[in-house]
Amino acid sequence: MIERTDGELLYLDDIQVGQKFGSDSYTVDEAQIKAFAGQFDPQPFHLDEQAARDSLFGGLAASGWHTAAITMRLIVTGDTRFAGGVIGAGGEISWPRPTRPGDVLSVESEVLQVSSSRSRPDRGIVTVRNKTLNQTGEVVQIMTGKLVVFRRPSTGGEYMPPVSVHTGH
Amino acid sequence: MIERTDGELLYLDDIQVGQKFGSDSYTVDEAQIKAFAGQFDPQPFHLDEQAARDSLFGGLAASGWHTAAITMRLIVTGDTRFAGGVIGAGGEISWPRPTRPGDVLSVESEVLQVSSSRSRPDRGIVTVRNKTLNQTGEVVQIMTGKLVVFRRPSTGGEYMPPVSVHTGH
Repeated sequence: MIERTDGELLYLDDIQVGQKFGSDSYTVDEAQIKAFAGQFDPQPFHLDEQAARDSLFGGLAASGWHTAAITMRLIVTGDTRFAGGVIGAGGEISWPRPTRPGDVLSVESEVLQVSSSRSRPDRGIVTVRNKTLNQTGEVVQIMTGKLVVFRRPSTGGEYMPPVSVHTGH
Repeated sequence: MIERTDGELLYLDDIQVGQKFGSDSYTVDEAQIKAFAGQFDPQPFHLDEQAARDSLFGGLAASGWHTAAITMRLIVTGDTRFAGGVIGAGGEISWPRPTRPGDVLSVESEVLQVSSSRSRPDRGIVTVRNKTLNQTGEVVQIMTGKLVVFRRPSTGGEYMPPVSVHTGH
């Protein structure tokens, strides 16, 4: 089940293993796929239908980095409302199948681990597995990321201002 | 040392552990950082100098996914000239430090492992570590990716056409 947090900001103290976060959806069209690829991944199977049909992908496919970027948008505009923002130190990524033109993507995130920082008591690392699904529920990406998350500030402590997400383009 | 392959296409048969590939360079400016973030990672520290100064980043920082996308462009337009294209199944990514406005990025890639596919004799998996460096040689990203690479086609075998990279925007 996806818990919607309805706008409240989450600190490290609020996060538990097993907690889940949902997202809105994002429709990917052919023009977006070609524009992203032209800028960042200019390979024929991301730019041209005919070339894509003759490739491993068997048809036009979004760059995996485009799927990753859309996933990030869905996470930061979704229910993963960490007070300091969604700040990734790194992680693992895989693309079990490509994103196609017309796909409607959404992200299901689940907390796998919560660790306190020994050297910096104001923060910790939260490991989150983010599954990006298309409109039929097929997984197009799994990204397991380590995120820096701050503790709720105590009175007199150093204060990290909450982050609000800009949703405009 | 970076070996430049000067346009020849590489098949699985041509790739050995320890082989290195270089790239051109890519200058990242503030407008690009804000445009990418506005579209895919709309958090204040990627969009606004003042908010960024007050954040963990201490100044405007590119989204890690922007660094990843630029890295992919540098790889596919650089010396990693695999005959079927640069097709990633997944990998590990980390961002030791952020990309900043004005940074000039380049990528150094090294082959870590070459495996044949047991089920599909026409291809294999090549593990490549791609380090993205800024103009002072600091590492802004390490991406270790598993790439699908095709064998040189034998006479009468199934043919995977070579891929040429489009460098236009």
